[in-house]
This record gives sequence, C-alpha cells and structure tokens, in this order.
Amino acid sequence: MLDCVIIGGGPAGVSSAINLKLLGKSFLWFSGPSKKVERAELIKNYPAFPQVTGKELSKAFKKHVESMDIEMRGEVVTGVYETDGHFTLLVKDESFEAKTVILCLGVEASKPIGGEEEFLGRGVSYCATCDGFLYKGKKIAVLCTDKQFEHEAEFLAGIAETAYVIPLYKGYEIKAPNARIILKKPVSVSGDTRVRSLSFKDESVEIDGMFILRGSVSPSTLLRGLKVEGGHIAVNRDCSTNIAGVFSAGDCTGRPYQYAKAVGEGNIAAHSVVEYLTR
Amino acid sequence: MLDCVIIGGGPAGVSSAINLKLLGKSFLWFSGPSKKVERAELIKNYPAFPQVTGKELSKAFKKHVESMDIEMRGEVVTGVYETDGHFTLLVKDESFEAKTVILCLGVEASKPIGGEEEFLGRGVSYCATCDGFLYKGKKIAVLCTDKQFEHEAEFLAGIAETAYVIPLYKGYEIKAPNARIILKKPVSVSGDTRVRSLSFKDESVEIDGMFILRGSVSPSTLLRGLKVEGGHIAVNRDCSTNIAGVFSAGDCTGRPYQYAKAVGEGNIAAHSVVEYLTR
Repeated sequence: MLDCVIIGGGPAGVSSAINLKLLGKSFLWFSGPSKKVERAELIKNYPAFPQVTGKELSKAFKKHVESMDIEMRGEVVTGVYETDGHFTLLVKDESFEAKTVILCLGVEASKPIGGEEEFLGRGVSYCATCDGFLYKGKKIAVLCTDKQFEHEAEFLAGIAETAYVIPLYKGYEIKAPNARIILKKPVSVSGDTRVRSLSFKDESVEIDGMFILRGSVSPSTLLRGLKVEGGHIAVNRDCSTNIAGVFSAGDCTGRPYQYAKAVGEGNIAAHSVVEYLTR
Repeated sequence: MLDCVIIGGGPAGVSSAINLKLLGKSFLWFSGPSKKVERAELIKNYPAFPQVTGKELSKAFKKHVESMDIEMRGEVVTGVYETDGHFTLLVKDESFEAKTVILCLGVEASKPIGGEEEFLGRGVSYCATCDGFLYKGKKIAVLCTDKQFEHEAEFLAGIAETAYVIPLYKGYEIKAPNARIILKKPVSVSGDTRVRSLSFKDESVEIDGMFILRGSVSPSTLLRGLKVEGGHIAVNRDCSTNIAGVFSAGDCTGRPYQYAKAVGEGNIAAHSVVEYLTR
C-alpha cells in the first residue's frame, strides 16, 4: 500500500512530489498531458526568477524532480474510490492502493459536459481499455481532447460499429475506417436509464455509449462525495478536503491561479499528508 | 495615502512586494534585520531550484526585487493603529498612512518577555528616537537583539543616568560610559501603574523604563486586537485576518515553515489586497 498518490503534474504536483520524496514517503505521481505552465509566455512573479518563460520554468521543474529520481507517469487517473479508510485508484486497466491522495487537478479541463456526471457508469466512460469491449458492434461517441489520446480513439473505433470521433484540438490524425469525425463541441449527453444520444448545438446523434478522453477528470466525478464550491475543491488551511486522507493543492482549490500559490499549497499538502499518516 | 504597507523581508514579503508592484499598487516595504533565509544551509524543496543554499536563494530574491525597482527599507515598524478604516504605521519618528497592511513577521523574534505587552506605553517602548527623551537622567534597561541596534542603545545610554544594556548576541561592542552590560536573558518587567523593575532568573534591577530593540514586534503588540491562535496570526484561506484590511503571510501564519508556503501566501495576500481595494 502506497503512502500517497499525487494526481496532477503542474507546479502544485511538483511541489508535493518533491516534499513527499524528501520526507521519505512512498508514492506514485500521475499526470495527464497538461502543458499549461509551458504555454505561459512570461512569468514575472515566481520569486527568485525575475523573468522566466513558461518553457524555462517547466524545464527547471522537470530538472528538479529528475535530480531527485522522481518519476511522473503520463497515464490519466480515471477514478478514485474510498474503501476501508484507504483509496483505490483506477489507471487504465490497472489499480493502485494508497493511504492518501493529493489532487492537483488544475482548472483547465475540469468543466464536464451536460449529463456527463449523471450518466457516468451508465454509458459515459473515461477509460477505453476498461470499457471498450462493452460496445462491440455498437454506436459510440469519442470526445478526444488531446492528440495523445488518438490511439485510444482508434482502438475504440476498431471495436464499435460506428464511432463519432470529436477532436477538440487542431491537426488531428485519426485513422479508422468507421470513424466519423465531427468538428463541433458537444453540449450534452441524454437518455433514459442509459445514454441514448449526444447533442450538439444544431444536431444530435444516437449513441449507445460515450467515451470522454481527457487529461483530467472533473474533481467531483473523479471522487464521489468530494466537496466542490464554486467550481473549486473546498480545502481547509492545511489543504485537507472534506474527505479524510484526501488533500488538494493548486489552481483546483481556487484563485489566485498562480505558480507561487500552487507550489505553496503543494508543500502544505505534502506536510499535511505526513501528519495524517503519523496520526 | 498608500495602498499598502508590507512588514517583513522574508520570502512572504518578497512575494507580496513583487505582486503588488506588478499589480500597480503604491506601497512601502519595511523589514527588520532578518537573516533567516541566509542562514539556511541547503534548501531542496524550493521548486525549480534543485539544491540551493540560503545565501544563494536570498541573493536571487534580492536580485528579483531589485530588477523591478522595489526598495526594501531597513527600519522597524513599531506600531500599527487603525483609524477611520485605514492604518497609521509608526516607523522611528515618522508615520505612514496606508489602506491595507500585509504582515510577514516570521516566527523568530515574536516571543515577548513577561509583562511586555502589559506595560507597553507605560514604560516599555520599542523606539529609541520616539521615547528616549522621556528618560533623561533616569534608569533604563535596553534589550538589544541585534548588532544593528547598538547605535540606538548607545543613544539611549547617552540620555539616561544608567542604562542596563542586555545584548542577546555574540560580539557586542557598545561604547557608552554609563552603560552597564548584563549578559543574561531578561524574564519579565513588572511595576504598578508603570514599569518599576526588570527581572532575570536570579536578580532584578530597578528601572524607570525599558527599551526593546528587536527586528520585529510580536503581532499582538504590533497591532492591538489582531487575532492570534497558538502563537500564530489567525488567517483565512485568502490570507485575511480578523481585522478588515490586514492580511498576513509566511511563517507567522503557522506551519509548515517553508519557503514555498511563504511565497505562496505572499502571492495570495497581495492578490487579496487588490481585491479588497477594488471593493
């Protein structure tokens, strides 16, 4: 059983990982394909770096964690379940057990589409390899938010009769004979006991299932029962959430959306994890 | 009227100052002689700096603020008073008015001696130039916590009949004919309506006044009515205190005592000041 799993590779995750390592805890660190730090043009308020581009700071973070032999894994955690005072985390077709969790999810990809939470497990899935075979010969929609997920979209298209693939980025290359590309933003999924259709602004398609391939899952769907206020994970001063053993840091806990604030909270969260483990 | 005064030159103060400058606010920044960052041997958990000595990080902070034309003033703020929704700050024999205050006081020098708060203004003073002349020809004690204050101690000894000077550091050089050096830690001041004596563990001396020359004043004596819990300034998630317009960041708000946490809170406090000013 791991001491902790950190979810999220931004500054808060970096700071949490560095501190857990220094504090001698066992942990795994997962991050989807977030490139938010890299994209920042010029950062002037990360103390001790008078002027730094997002790329430079991102590289410096990477160098720091590498110098400490910390590995960041690129898989997406699709679910966190509490069982008997510890947590089970689903990552593709593997699962991991941990005593604590630090959520550093950012804010970018956290807005669910209409009906997503309602139909999760009833036609909506985040995991191609886990649930793909349920849709053999059926009609599915695949929301693909990043190039990195194209092979998963192709895998799903290979199973389904028809796959409506919706790439939300430029320069997509999806090769599957039965994939129908839709270049619109989906608005909501709907149905009865299960998902039946996916609606866009001006049309809708009939589907049996919907796969949402995203770098991160919205907090409340990732972990049922997690208290969210105004779109942010509600945390106390020590970065603890309403669920014992679950901590959170960085943009996902609220404004200001700032590197310094994120590394500060990552530091606090790691120290709170250690205090929680000793209790 | 200034938008803000920042008190404290550690990482939290640095981060507050950088952000207030970038956010276009008018402010002054005061710091006593804190050398805590410089003294840290090796810091491994300030993200993006894999291994850095306290001296190097301190230099990098200094370079950052200098590159932005931010000035840190070395004087000690000895009192903060709320009047008509703004604040008056006493600094030596000057005073400044500000709409908000950010307290980044650290934890080091914040423990008052017995009776200090009780007799403040009734024989206990933090300011040689403000109150020194009240003790012409009288007996005083001068608690001197840092070499930087030696000229103030000598100035006071020059006025008083007898000055018991208590240096709390090594290598003191205090030149004043009527200064009597005491190399012990004072325990408490006591008296009736005013200070009458200063007690050490094994003796006490009769005095008319007591000067305490410190890099920082304890939060609750600096600002009456400020809520302190367990020795730390009580703050909310946005770094606001119980007094509207007063914010706090860094070690003085509680554990973990960490650079990353301090710069994070400094950032939050500056953003909260801006939000407060626009309201």
